[in-house]
Amino acid sequence: MIKENAKISMAVIRRLPKYRRYLSELLEKGRERISSKELSELIGFTASQIRQDLNNFGGFGQQGYGYKVEELYKAIGKILGLDHSYNTIIVGAGNLGQAIANYTNFDKAGFIPIGMFDINPKLIGLKIRDIEIMDADLMGDFIKQNKVDIGIICTSKEKAQSVAEVMATNGIKGIWNFAPTDIQAPSDVVVETVHLSESLYTISFLLKHHE
Amino acid sequence: MIKENAKISMAVIRRLPKYRRYLSELLEKGRERISSKELSELIGFTASQIRQDLNNFGGFGQQGYGYKVEELYKAIGKILGLDHSYNTIIVGAGNLGQAIANYTNFDKAGFIPIGMFDINPKLIGLKIRDIEIMDADLMGDFIKQNKVDIGIICTSKEKAQSVAEVMATNGIKGIWNFAPTDIQAPSDVVVETVHLSESLYTISFLLKHHE
Repeated sequence: MIKENAKISMAVIRRLPKYRRYLSELLEKGRERISSKELSELIGFTASQIRQDLNNFGGFGQQGYGYKVEELYKAIGKILGLDHSYNTIIVGAGNLGQAIANYTNFDKAGFIPIGMFDINPKLIGLKIRDIEIMDADLMGDFIKQNKVDIGIICTSKEKAQSVAEVMATNGIKGIWNFAPTDIQAPSDVVVETVHLSESLYTISFLLKHHE
Repeated sequence: MIKENAKISMAVIRRLPKYRRYLSELLEKGRERISSKELSELIGFTASQIRQDLNNFGGFGQQGYGYKVEELYKAIGKILGLDHSYNTIIVGAGNLGQAIANYTNFDKAGFIPIGMFDINPKLIGLKIRDIEIMDADLMGDFIKQNKVDIGIICTSKEKAQSVAEVMATNGIKGIWNFAPTDIQAPSDVVVETVHLSESLYTISFLLKHHE
């Protein structure tokens, strides 16, 4: 699978969760199959785009029959690596960190928070759901002693890089960064940064140029 | 400007905040000008991509001289509509809503939260910074009586569409949606949805296919 996927563009990868979300809604409604044309109307991508995207992974549809909803939903989940679970830690236990810890949809998808860290003595020792907030100084040892797959950074911009370094040094291979800065990490560490302000500024752009 | 910008793709619009962020860091360091080549090495886009993006707005660089950092920073801010401020309301005052209300970087960029709303009686009446959490039933009247530019939805997936309808009916033209669902709105309303799980699933994809 690696060789094939070496050619998959990030644009395709970013579309896969959207397919999965729509398929999940169809499943909930009891739909058993769907044509690429219907799927296209629902999602807003062209039918040929959809066929092309899915062909990257061997293709699932059958001419004149369409896609089996459940089969495709499960297959995309597997492609996305959602067929097993990931231990996560959340670093920075302010509102955003707590929001993520409380967001049970991530648990349902297999991302299990097993520890939270902060430098604020008022937060250390508190529990969010069942997850204890620990002293940030203990993070490195915690990562070594537990199998942590993904580190979630909810700190300030200033602390983010040093947190990422502790994560990478101790063996974390995936970093989800909410601090508004780009993070440097070794090439075998996946870093995905959510730039919230960049999303907000597209709204102000569109509001300004709509008028 | 409208006619020119009608051709600007969303991909270009989404790159503009990134240029602005890097320029802001250069400004802080006291840099006065930069070539598209240097800017390219910094941001990771090709120099020709950068020139092409900026030419959409008339172009700013000078052959053999590069870009004036401060001038370009301000110009991009203006293009993004960051030359004036926006009143916002936050609907859903849980952790995520509170995180956004507490995030002063948005204020600094001109996005001013003037009200928060929730249906939870335990939250109604509380203040986050100076912003009162009001009963969600009062949202429509509040929007009518105050100039609200952007509505931020931090509710569950189930409530998001009805909240968006109250917003649009009462004159809000920009919606920033954090609920994990696509929202239907009239064509003169800008909707920007942040699908956090879609960002998370790209990490699991890359972790799986890295190996």
